[in-house]
Amino acid sequence: LLKKTTQMNALFDFYQSLLTPKQREYMKLYFWEDYSLGEISDAVHVSRQAIYDNIKRTEKVLIYYEERLQLYEDILNRKQLLKKLETVISEGETRKGMELIRQLKEID
Amino acid sequence: LLKKTTQMNALFDFYQSLLTPKQREYMKLYFWEDYSLGEISDAVHVSRQAIYDNIKRTEKVLIYYEERLQLYEDILNRKQLLKKLETVISEGETRKGMELIRQLKEID
Repeated sequence: LLKKTTQMNALFDFYQSLLTPKQREYMKLYFWEDYSLGEISDAVHVSRQAIYDNIKRTEKVLIYYEERLQLYEDILNRKQLLKKLETVISEGETRKGMELIRQLKEID
Repeated sequence: LLKKTTQMNALFDFYQSLLTPKQREYMKLYFWEDYSLGEISDAVHVSRQAIYDNIKRTEKVLIYYEERLQLYEDILNRKQLLKKLETVISEGETRKGMELIRQLKEID
């Protein structure tokens, strides 16, 4: 049930400063180091179930923040627009560039 | 001691989704409608002191979020870069434009 997905990884990246040290520690091992729950349990001497519960709660916290702040969604949109902007500018298409800048301004 | 500043206004704008309904209500009256503490007290039938304490706490919460997520700082930086980018592109300066896009990418 735990989601080792790109999205959860990104949410952890954005919102980790709002987590407790313990939440951060387990999440880093689980998402960044790709430890299994059993391996984290061995490494930190805490039961597998406690690790599972902690990470599960953390996932909910991250989703809560994203639902409210939408940093992940905004960043994906900005990345896409900046990429298009690069192409357009390198091709000297000023008017299209201005339109993309307008869209970028709207995100914030 | 309460800060009716542009910055606090902006922080409220970014992080209001993380506040409680009551915190949001008082902040809206105080910052957006420019009510005084006494006027809010009259409007919602809560003591002036309770309103003051609530807003004071909310300010701390907003600063807490900003210290960790820096949305306000990032947005100011992005706005500045996008403004420069607009000028540079309208003047056909492709190389400078590409450099500004690189800087924009680094913010996220």
